Amino acid sequence: MKIGIIGGGSVGLLCAYYLSLHHEVTVVTRRKEQAAAIQSEGIRLYKGGEEFSADCSADTNINSDFDLLVVTVKQHQLQSVFPWLERIGKTNILFLQNGMGHIHDLKDWRVGHSIYVGIVEHGAVRKSDTAVDHTGLGAIKWSAFDEAEPDRLNILLQHNHSDFPIRYETDWYRLLTGKLIVNACINPLTALLQVKNGELLTTPAYLAFMKLVFQEACLILKLEDEAEAWERVRAVCGQTKENRSSMLVDVIEGRQTEADAIIGYLLKEASLHGLDAVHLEFLYGSIKALERNTNKVF
Amino acid sequence: MKIGIIGGGSVGLLCAYYLSLHHEVTVVTRRKEQAAAIQSEGIRLYKGGEEFSADCSADTNINSDFDLLVVTVKQHQLQSVFPWLERIGKTNILFLQNGMGHIHDLKDWRVGHSIYVGIVEHGAVRKSDTAVDHTGLGAIKWSAFDEAEPDRLNILLQHNHSDFPIRYETDWYRLLTGKLIVNACINPLTALLQVKNGELLTTPAYLAFMKLVFQEACLILKLEDEAEAWERVRAVCGQTKENRSSMLVDVIEGRQTEADAIIGYLLKEASLHGLDAVHLEFLYGSIKALERNTNKVF
Repeated sequence: MKIGIIGGGSVGLLCAYYLSLHHEVTVVTRRKEQAAAIQSEGIRLYKGGEEFSADCSADTNINSDFDLLVVTVKQHQLQSVFPWLERIGKTNILFLQNGMGHIHDLKDWRVGHSIYVGIVEHGAVRKSDTAVDHTGLGAIKWSAFDEAEPDRLNILLQHNHSDFPIRYETDWYRLLTGKLIVNACINPLTALLQVKNGELLTTPAYLAFMKLVFQEACLILKLEDEAEAWERVRAVCGQTKENRSSMLVDVIEGRQTEADAIIGYLLKEASLHGLDAVHLEFLYGSIKALERNTNKVF
Repeated sequence: MKIGIIGGGSVGLLCAYYLSLHHEVTVVTRRKEQAAAIQSEGIRLYKGGEEFSADCSADTNINSDFDLLVVTVKQHQLQSVFPWLERIGKTNILFLQNGMGHIHDLKDWRVGHSIYVGIVEHGAVRKSDTAVDHTGLGAIKWSAFDEAEPDRLNILLQHNHSDFPIRYETDWYRLLTGKLIVNACINPLTALLQVKNGELLTTPAYLAFMKLVFQEACLILKLEDEAEAWERVRAVCGQTKENRSSMLVDVIEGRQTEADAIIGYLLKEASLHGLDAVHLEFLYGSIKALERNTNKVF
């Protein structure tokens, strides 16, 4: 099928490479130079010391020709994408943002499109406008949002490279909250403490502090199985113990973090339901201060 | 009497100006240029739009001629002062550091000197090597540490300018912990959130988070009257609502903070007595990360 990938970051290039093996893919980028580079060079993917390449189209416009649009920009960039999507004919749109900040937007978004949401469990680092390093093999998991009908799309997306499985899940809320709780526990703490993920397990006070954050987030998300979720948070910390979280990397590199997508969603939900979010409010305020910090010269 | 003031920062210059009105004062500085400037120009003090000046000696050496030495350097600079103090004849030494980090050092310090500790409740901003702005009128409160005999010194220190009262207190632990609990609650939070002191009262989640920090610190310090102490923390936040805490200013200006003096003492005590310090550990780690941050170029 004809797939448009919106966004030429690490996730966008990763999706573009793998999906172009079975589909006709166009990457839609903001910058003309990146579109021109992809159009002429294709996309290179590095994996396990090897280099692969795939031909790919690219454009700076979204048109109505696509059977599926995969939106890979960050949550805080979505506002500039929505107007484009409102102008095109009815199609399938899969949103692959971190966190759940976009959920509040999608709930209020009245358009004819069939909307899907998903999570990316791959590790990927963009090396250039046309190259991506596939650093961690994982999966993409997606689900229908609202009343979308996923069956046809599901069949079309099941044929894929074994390093890039795409799995359908029936419950979008369970899918997204399952990832959000992990991000909410690990990302802000590692960004503020400037530690690798594993240190949240090995420093007892940090683990205890993370548990307090976890408990707040659990109540807000109304998670059914708290014990299972906490084990998952600990497991991810352990499996990624040598990694720097994306929020820590964003802070170090002076970029805007995904605090709104991750903590902002929880705070909005807490406020809607009159729940306490003392630790999350503090983490949010501190990360936002850090963003202001690194964006100015003292 | 002959008084030596060790340190030419804001507190050192403030003490030097006021004490020189009734005593023979020498400021001992690390830098030769500052000593030379004080020696030739004296000290200027700004207060309420007026300018005052006082003659003053200055030196870069500590000798045995003093009846009283007032140590005004920061806690993390004390280690370079101790060896000097160990070489001079027995005298009275008053330590005016923020926090209580120096208490662990003083307890282990076996010297013949009579040791006193005190707190500074003045607002003061150094304007140059020889000038200080007395921004907030307060008091100096001091107390005998260990077995020092304060009576004679107390009589000599009671004659003072009315804007610079010096008050003797009988219980050094009560005196220092009373100030520490306020600093521990206000300083790290305002530095991480980058807010003025008043915002800790007006944002409900920040107030609730500060209460959690307060409760941890109270248990560690074994404070007798928790309710009174909490009221004092709130009162100071209110009275200084438009102020930036010293730790916030240190972070903004890329200087080392007094995290060790303030939180470090509490963590050491918690560890000695097997007490929980989950929030304080997190604050300490985050402030230390911020110090590393501002001291390097990303």
